[in-house]
Amino acid sequence: MSKNKVQPKILPGFMELLPEDQIAFNKMYDTIRSVYERYGFLPLDTPLIELSEVLLAKAGGETEKQIYRFQKGDNDLSLRFDLTVPLARYVAQHAGELAFPFKRYQMSKVFRGERPQKGRFREFYQCDIDVIGQDSLDIVYDAEMPAVIYNVFKELAFGSFTIRMNNRKVLNGYFAELGYSEIIGDILRTIDKLEKIGREAVTEELEKFGVKAEDAERILAFLALRGANDDVIEALRAQNIENELYKQGVEELATVVSYLRLFGVEESAFIIDLTIARGLDYYTGTVFETMLNDYPSMGSVCSGGRYDSLAEYYTDQKLPGIGISIGLTRLFYQLKENGLIPAAGSGCVARCLVIPMGEAQLGAALTAASAIRGAGISADVYCQSKGMKQKMKYAAKIGVPYAAIIGEDEAAQGTVMLKDMATGEQKAVTVAELADAVRA
Amino acid sequence: MSKNKVQPKILPGFMELLPEDQIAFNKMYDTIRSVYERYGFLPLDTPLIELSEVLLAKAGGETEKQIYRFQKGDNDLSLRFDLTVPLARYVAQHAGELAFPFKRYQMSKVFRGERPQKGRFREFYQCDIDVIGQDSLDIVYDAEMPAVIYNVFKELAFGSFTIRMNNRKVLNGYFAELGYSEIIGDILRTIDKLEKIGREAVTEELEKFGVKAEDAERILAFLALRGANDDVIEALRAQNIENELYKQGVEELATVVSYLRLFGVEESAFIIDLTIARGLDYYTGTVFETMLNDYPSMGSVCSGGRYDSLAEYYTDQKLPGIGISIGLTRLFYQLKENGLIPAAGSGCVARCLVIPMGEAQLGAALTAASAIRGAGISADVYCQSKGMKQKMKYAAKIGVPYAAIIGEDEAAQGTVMLKDMATGEQKAVTVAELADAVRA
Repeated sequence: MSKNKVQPKILPGFMELLPEDQIAFNKMYDTIRSVYERYGFLPLDTPLIELSEVLLAKAGGETEKQIYRFQKGDNDLSLRFDLTVPLARYVAQHAGELAFPFKRYQMSKVFRGERPQKGRFREFYQCDIDVIGQDSLDIVYDAEMPAVIYNVFKELAFGSFTIRMNNRKVLNGYFAELGYSEIIGDILRTIDKLEKIGREAVTEELEKFGVKAEDAERILAFLALRGANDDVIEALRAQNIENELYKQGVEELATVVSYLRLFGVEESAFIIDLTIARGLDYYTGTVFETMLNDYPSMGSVCSGGRYDSLAEYYTDQKLPGIGISIGLTRLFYQLKENGLIPAAGSGCVARCLVIPMGEAQLGAALTAASAIRGAGISADVYCQSKGMKQKMKYAAKIGVPYAAIIGEDEAAQGTVMLKDMATGEQKAVTVAELADAVRA
Repeated sequence: MSKNKVQPKILPGFMELLPEDQIAFNKMYDTIRSVYERYGFLPLDTPLIELSEVLLAKAGGETEKQIYRFQKGDNDLSLRFDLTVPLARYVAQHAGELAFPFKRYQMSKVFRGERPQKGRFREFYQCDIDVIGQDSLDIVYDAEMPAVIYNVFKELAFGSFTIRMNNRKVLNGYFAELGYSEIIGDILRTIDKLEKIGREAVTEELEKFGVKAEDAERILAFLALRGANDDVIEALRAQNIENELYKQGVEELATVVSYLRLFGVEESAFIIDLTIARGLDYYTGTVFETMLNDYPSMGSVCSGGRYDSLAEYYTDQKLPGIGISIGLTRLFYQLKENGLIPAAGSGCVARCLVIPMGEAQLGAALTAASAIRGAGISADVYCQSKGMKQKMKYAAKIGVPYAAIIGEDEAAQGTVMLKDMATGEQKAVTVAELADAVRA
């Protein structure tokens, strides 16, 4: 390379894929979008750049440090760091023009200037759905969310998965009853580490926060409740907790479980797990996490929950909602690391590469490609003046499923020599039959 | 609104749509993507943020002033201002891993901090395709580009359109022969204004640059050549211009015209227009613009051309290519301004809103919605506990084509009362027939 060239590179923490992986990524993206749309969610596309004053109305601490924030002219600008704050801003701004419940999906990039490390990205896709009510939002929507998750992960087909559900009222009410209302935050954060640091370390940490030894025992037994969903609900009802919030939370859990069955979600795909708390401050009811059963180390691949107030920084209107988010960039990276992104010959959008042997067959080649495209199937024509060997080498390299070769005879007869690139088999096919012959 | 609230708003020059328009926008986006893929173009998704040193290797002047550029940690970063520079960087970086010709599409947002004005955007979608060759790229690809444009605008269905073609070699060779090689840039820029400022002002301006009066006459007569494409080519051949570049350009035009017919592009959809020059420095052969015939004031809605060297700032490799770009955000805005974005009842993704009359019918409603979704059709269920009047008002507001109402009787019989929201007609339909009844 000449000395005066600039080295072509991108920043660490940014994902950029080669065609084969990009196609696999887009397939996942399209699957998620298709399920979201099938459930009637409306598309939304907010600007990537917002006024810092608006975007950071709520932010603080760690979030604020990670923001890409800059001045342009007189404006203090920031790149969005999630899709929830722009949704809150949008709903507050356009409340008069929207119909509620407002169901929207947004699947776009967000930005966080984290220290780059394996599997963490500074620019990544979030695939969000939320339902926002005006004043109130029925609990049926709490069951619709996991029903959507269920269908997304069934169609993504990366093996069995479990949606873990909890309700923040159950946790909050329970700890209020035990007299730990003031340290609920500390307790929940400690509990959140149960899987990471283990029971003993959690007990010790709880005691440091002022939890009595016998209460720590009870709390851990409570949180370890597992089993058939109806059994867990019965066990929760039998806890002798009189706190009203607790009781309400338990009945909400029971309701969501019964609705999930109406939504057709298999019983094996969702469990009540009282350790699920979710870090964010604003969850107030149902919360979810989703695990791929064979890959627990991936952590939650889809999380979310119910919140009382979407947009309180922008409006006095009460806008309760429920939402979930799939971090698609991270998920794709993890699936790839685990060998779950198929690598075989799929670096090609076209189902068939039409190859004219010489320039004289170009017309016939274009006609053949049009016949395939007319059936809605992708086709490409190799148009470089090269030898047949190089043309076939190109077909092999791009991983196209079929090559349709057209020489003098084929052009004269209105046929192609169709080669299955995987098996090497060849057969003469008429142009009229070609689309069906290459269909997936 | 309380005083302590932040006013929810976005920056001027950023497009954000209400659901109805967003659905129309996405439909256009999906149509373009589908045509690009049908021609075998591969998807690419580069980061929005790049190193300034890399992204601005070539930029300068006006472009550089418009860049969103900022510091984060030790890094000097910029938001991309087009999709061509990231493509150049990508191809130079990954040349060893790509198959050439490399055909890629990218349809994403780019950023330019222009002074905001009507119809100009600071954040907008570009929908690009390019074909990149290694060392050489056959001229057939020059005809594939307008063939793709032709199919895109046919499927977008915004009325008749014309692809205007020229070849920079024709212009460059012609002006070299007349002895104006040194001021070709000035001449071309002046010519570019022909439609805006008229023949007289152009002549005057040309004379200021040193063009003799009789040459100005000849040049303007030359540029005014119009007619059937074959006639224009004959007229170009008969110009008595001996310059080799000119002759080559004329034969390239002739070749592209003949291939366009092979690609099945209607003769009425493309014309040779010698006034098309394109502003960018790097076009070296075929150039295109596309006009909607009924809306000439929109200007070109899809432009592009052939360049000798995609990535010379990053690599010594010769990477000739050809590409086109649709500025989708601006196009959508212009179509909307001209009343071409249909406004009628399409603010809804779902084809059918299922409405249980009471909570007891929720199960039946979810079953009905599943039946519709099972056929790949979008359905929504209204789950708020409201009166029927409010439920129907919601259905009317979102503009859903059908409402499927389920009361006690319907639930018992496995039917719904299907209401066509446009005509008001109602009829009983079994759940098994429902998907077909609401299909578009």
